[in-house]
Amino acid sequence: MARYDFASDNAAPATPETMAALAAANEGFASGYGTDAVCMRAAELIRGWLDADAEVRFVASGTAANGLSLATLCQPFEAVLAHEHAHICTDEAGAPGFFGHGLGLIPLPGGSGRIDPGALAEALALPDVSYRQSPGALSLTNATEYGAVYSPGELGPLIGQAKAAGLGVHLDGARLANAAAAGFDVKALARLGVDVLVIGGTKAGMTATEAVVVLDAARARRFDARLKQAGQLPSKARFLAAPFLGMLEEAALIRHAAHANAMAARLAAACPFPCAHAVETNAVFVEMDEAALARLHAAGWFVYRFTDGTVRFMCSWATTAEAVDELCHTLRSIA
Amino acid sequence: MARYDFASDNAAPATPETMAALAAANEGFASGYGTDAVCMRAAELIRGWLDADAEVRFVASGTAANGLSLATLCQPFEAVLAHEHAHICTDEAGAPGFFGHGLGLIPLPGGSGRIDPGALAEALALPDVSYRQSPGALSLTNATEYGAVYSPGELGPLIGQAKAAGLGVHLDGARLANAAAAGFDVKALARLGVDVLVIGGTKAGMTATEAVVVLDAARARRFDARLKQAGQLPSKARFLAAPFLGMLEEAALIRHAAHANAMAARLAAACPFPCAHAVETNAVFVEMDEAALARLHAAGWFVYRFTDGTVRFMCSWATTAEAVDELCHTLRSIA
Amino acid sequence: MARYDFASDNAAPATPETMAALAAANEGFASGYGTDAVCMRAAELIRGWLDADAEVRFVASGTAANGLSLATLCQPFEAVLAHEHAHICTDEAGAPGFFGHGLGLIPLPGGSGRIDPGALAEALALPDVSYRQSPGALSLTNATEYGAVYSPGELGPLIGQAKAAGLGVHLDGARLANAAAAGFDVKALARLGVDVLVIGGTKAGMTATEAVVVLDAARARRFDARLKQAGQLPSKARFLAAPFLGMLEEAALIRHAAHANAMAARLAAACPFPCAHAVETNAVFVEMDEAALARLHAAGWFVYRFTDGTVRFMCSWATTAEAVDELCHTLRSIA
Amino acid sequence: MARYDFASDNAAPATPETMAALAAANEGFASGYGTDAVCMRAAELIRGWLDADAEVRFVASGTAANGLSLATLCQPFEAVLAHEHAHICTDEAGAPGFFGHGLGLIPLPGGSGRIDPGALAEALALPDVSYRQSPGALSLTNATEYGAVYSPGELGPLIGQAKAAGLGVHLDGARLANAAAAGFDVKALARLGVDVLVIGGTKAGMTATEAVVVLDAARARRFDARLKQAGQLPSKARFLAAPFLGMLEEAALIRHAAHANAMAARLAAACPFPCAHAVETNAVFVEMDEAALARLHAAGWFVYRFTDGTVRFMCSWATTAEAVDELCHTLRSIA
Repeated sequence: MARYDFASDNAAPATPETMAALAAANEGFASGYGTDAVCMRAAELIRGWLDADAEVRFVASGTAANGLSLATLCQPFEAVLAHEHAHICTDEAGAPGFFGHGLGLIPLPGGSGRIDPGALAEALALPDVSYRQSPGALSLTNATEYGAVYSPGELGPLIGQAKAAGLGVHLDGARLANAAAAGFDVKALARLGVDVLVIGGTKAGMTATEAVVVLDAARARRFDARLKQAGQLPSKARFLAAPFLGMLEEAALIRHAAHANAMAARLAAACPFPCAHAVETNAVFVEMDEAALARLHAAGWFVYRFTDGTVRFMCSWATTAEAVDELCHTLRSIA
Repeated sequence: MARYDFASDNAAPATPETMAALAAANEGFASGYGTDAVCMRAAELIRGWLDADAEVRFVASGTAANGLSLATLCQPFEAVLAHEHAHICTDEAGAPGFFGHGLGLIPLPGGSGRIDPGALAEALALPDVSYRQSPGALSLTNATEYGAVYSPGELGPLIGQAKAAGLGVHLDGARLANAAAAGFDVKALARLGVDVLVIGGTKAGMTATEAVVVLDAARARRFDARLKQAGQLPSKARFLAAPFLGMLEEAALIRHAAHANAMAARLAAACPFPCAHAVETNAVFVEMDEAALARLHAAGWFVYRFTDGTVRFMCSWATTAEAVDELCHTLRSIA
Repeated sequence: MARYDFASDNAAPATPETMAALAAANEGFASGYGTDAVCMRAAELIRGWLDADAEVRFVASGTAANGLSLATLCQPFEAVLAHEHAHICTDEAGAPGFFGHGLGLIPLPGGSGRIDPGALAEALALPDVSYRQSPGALSLTNATEYGAVYSPGELGPLIGQAKAAGLGVHLDGARLANAAAAGFDVKALARLGVDVLVIGGTKAGMTATEAVVVLDAARARRFDARLKQAGQLPSKARFLAAPFLGMLEEAALIRHAAHANAMAARLAAACPFPCAHAVETNAVFVEMDEAALARLHAAGWFVYRFTDGTVRFMCSWATTAEAVDELCHTLRSIA
Repeated sequence: MARYDFASDNAAPATPETMAALAAANEGFASGYGTDAVCMRAAELIRGWLDADAEVRFVASGTAANGLSLATLCQPFEAVLAHEHAHICTDEAGAPGFFGHGLGLIPLPGGSGRIDPGALAEALALPDVSYRQSPGALSLTNATEYGAVYSPGELGPLIGQAKAAGLGVHLDGARLANAAAAGFDVKALARLGVDVLVIGGTKAGMTATEAVVVLDAARARRFDARLKQAGQLPSKARFLAAPFLGMLEEAALIRHAAHANAMAARLAAACPFPCAHAVETNAVFVEMDEAALARLHAAGWFVYRFTDGTVRFMCSWATTAEAVDELCHTLRSIA
């Protein structure tokens, strides 16, 4: 049977803190739809973590979280500027168009998932014509799909360009914990002008939950009705909030992410194949030909080629040094 | 602080079997998006319970489950026939129109949430004209929003009418467990011609999870892409499937629902206010004036007026006989 | 062969002024998508007629004009307050939900198509809850579907209520010309606070064209892209604008509408069946049993029962006194 | 003032046959929504022209016609395969996503707007995965955006590939008349397996009207409700059908298109700039640097750079040999 240890960080189980928080939240009767004490407390912790006032809600998937965020920022006849390999462009089956009712995507290039500032400038310089979906928002991902971490100094000019053009700004933080563990200051996000932020729970070691953080209060009008209509305001919301509560109360979020990042570094250090991107967080992308990949699969390790054609290895809170070493042993044997 | 024991069956915590199943599912790495062993096994148990072949998926809310089901059955320029007090008509913030892209609703009357067969016949007899959204599907709820249980003998003719008119049939089973515990034979559903079925987990004592069961294989084409685009195919799907696995492997689903039903019967028997609907499952609807309701609220019990103006008391797996007795004591004191 | 003279005001041909304007617009090459001289001049005439600054566009159907207007005013998780017999509620196949991406409708009662102010107040007083589509806009129709004319004194308080609640205001003016011919001061609309207005061309005797007038400039942002995406920004827009140019340059719009109104008065005066609504513009609604209607059909006159169950007779610019007299002769013979 | 003679074929006025047909259609009262004699007769002529049974409707814009056609063929979680420079990809402001409720586009390469068969094969060979919008339809354009004409022998294999993969086939015939005038046999379309076809009226010299032709009867179910909901079933439909009636009864459609094609040939022959694409119909694309284009603009001729960066000159039924010669004189002076 195939091993999924490195297939994705969403292949990992949930952390002990998540499970403990779920158990703790499972006490007695509670009001529904996000009005209970667990949701309140988790939202408070997130505001504290970000050092920002915000509306915080918990939804069951990153795709929904991103789609709802973008719908908050754009009209259907507009488009979202995003990296051409961003999750919203390549992996969400058109969810931005579904949640945004025809909302378009404008893919931009850039190394290791970071949007090239010049390409953004070019896109923003295009005239606003009726026959084209002009940009309504900029979407950034941190850490990027290639594990790169934008510094505040890199994010600032990109966000500045978008704001100057009147656009809203979305940040997909599916792996924000990994970026934070690598030194990114999450408290900079509000100050930099991000309007809506998604904090990934799933890939950070929680059960299926993501936090949607609306930093621009004007965007939050009737937000619960928006969520409800989209099937993302479950009555027993405490079970979506509890993992965040458990992971943030204990500072476990960063600790686990740091472990995942360290495991990726260990893997990269021992990997006989060349890395296609700098290993800044928990992902390792390697150049590997078809024959080698086939041998790896035959050896029982399930991993796959990513959008850029390289083979991706993801580490998570649950990745053990032993598994990394075992994998690297195999990699050396097939290189 | 207000007590939510009877506010809704979704105010209850999760059952021990649910929590145990979550813990058991939290072992090792697993493939994502519903392809793991927990999802497979839970789907198998549901097929067995229903005695039917079907595609089974797990989503995070009943609103999403219903919306996706109806979108599977209808075109945007069509409408869904449903009881005027059905959850999809009154409590989902227009989700059928969101998931169905403009899909309409045609509300039908009927006692205690059961659709009146004559009213259905009238609606189906209307000519198919371009300026009106003609029916594309019939939506039934069992148990109904008023706790009534359709017998197969009652469902048959309604479904028969719909099928004869070429419509698809959806069944909202948010409280199907309660109906089953009251004697409804769930194995009749496939035979009767239901095309898409939602089995409620939330109100049955699970965490936030619902099963979407597509009985008509033709409707399931590219169903995962439909779910993914709508943000309802979370990677860590095992945590949405596990509760069903736990509750069905142990027959806990029916046992807990039977307890909830019994608590409602106990409440109705001791309640000094007249019941507006027969108590067939876990809901008690009573006639109560504003002054009495205010006294009840003042006494710390949170309940509210339902769509028909009566005050609703919901029992759940977690409702204790003591709580019922305590509530009834209060009710007598304020009557 | 059936006669359609009184079936609808859209059964009439186009006025001589419309046809002359089409011919006049058909000169030489012109820039597209509403940027040509004909469109500019027609928009200017409309602004003059309304005595208001506004963005004006021309679309091919009233259903599209209304749907686009409502989408401009509301979010998908909101609803539009409208008379229960308003065209948008009963005759547009769910277009508000299509253009508004799930946008709901809240039907309100009121005599002869006028919204009851108390019913509006009740609807606005409902709490803003997540499970219900709360109102985002008020839609009014003048003249109403029953031919009634709101006075500015009647519109004012309705619009005032809506504005006080933060709602946008839409006015469906499919028969605004008839209202104006009956004395309604169209220059009051902007002053009263209408945000988006549709001026009907079709029923006023033009070819298939309607003017969308966006009075609130903030709502007009990227309006051409909205129209283009919805297939309502045709390149040869001059042919949609020309009829308005022809009818407004010559004051033909009011003259023809006054004739239609006069024909309805003539019909009502001679009609042996009781009128269900006061005849204020170009519509006559009569109480008529099935047998009488069948005799009328047998005599070759096609008319039909309207939403309220009465039989509707519509007059238009093309209705002749002879046709009215001939119809009334038949009516007397079948009474 | 700028001259628009060559800016687009939609800058031309309407043909005499169109205007005569509009006048002829403007007789007496008629039933609405496409049920009148003019619509019936125009549909019959189109069926005859195509030698195929089909449902035929008339809508006001090509964008709407294409969007509605694609919505008929695809689910929102699917995508349309189209040439990367197809009108639906570059010029419709995301209309496929609007009418298709999130429907995606998959751009394919190919010379002069013809889809490369190998690229189509590659796209169809991709596995059907949940995170990507898999193809639901193939969209072809004939004549292409670059004026190229697919022969039946070229269309056949492309359509065959699509059909073998279970896809529907749409053909955008905005300039089908030009293709036909260049020798394309329109009677081949139904035989080749096209499911929904749009026949352009606008660019063929009519007023704002396009014919939607549904060749696959199963796709036409409740088609009028689809059109009505989308605001594309105007009551006075006779004015959208009449131009087709006038142009097909007199064989004027082909005669005018042949003239447009001949004018393009004349232009290409005398043009001192190199042509980027073979001139097969009514378009001439030339390589021209910025300085030359600026001189052309300064000389009063409005034309613009197309998607491929070349400068496009469109001829129409109204283009005169004198205008071509005058333009070429200018072109020589600025070369």
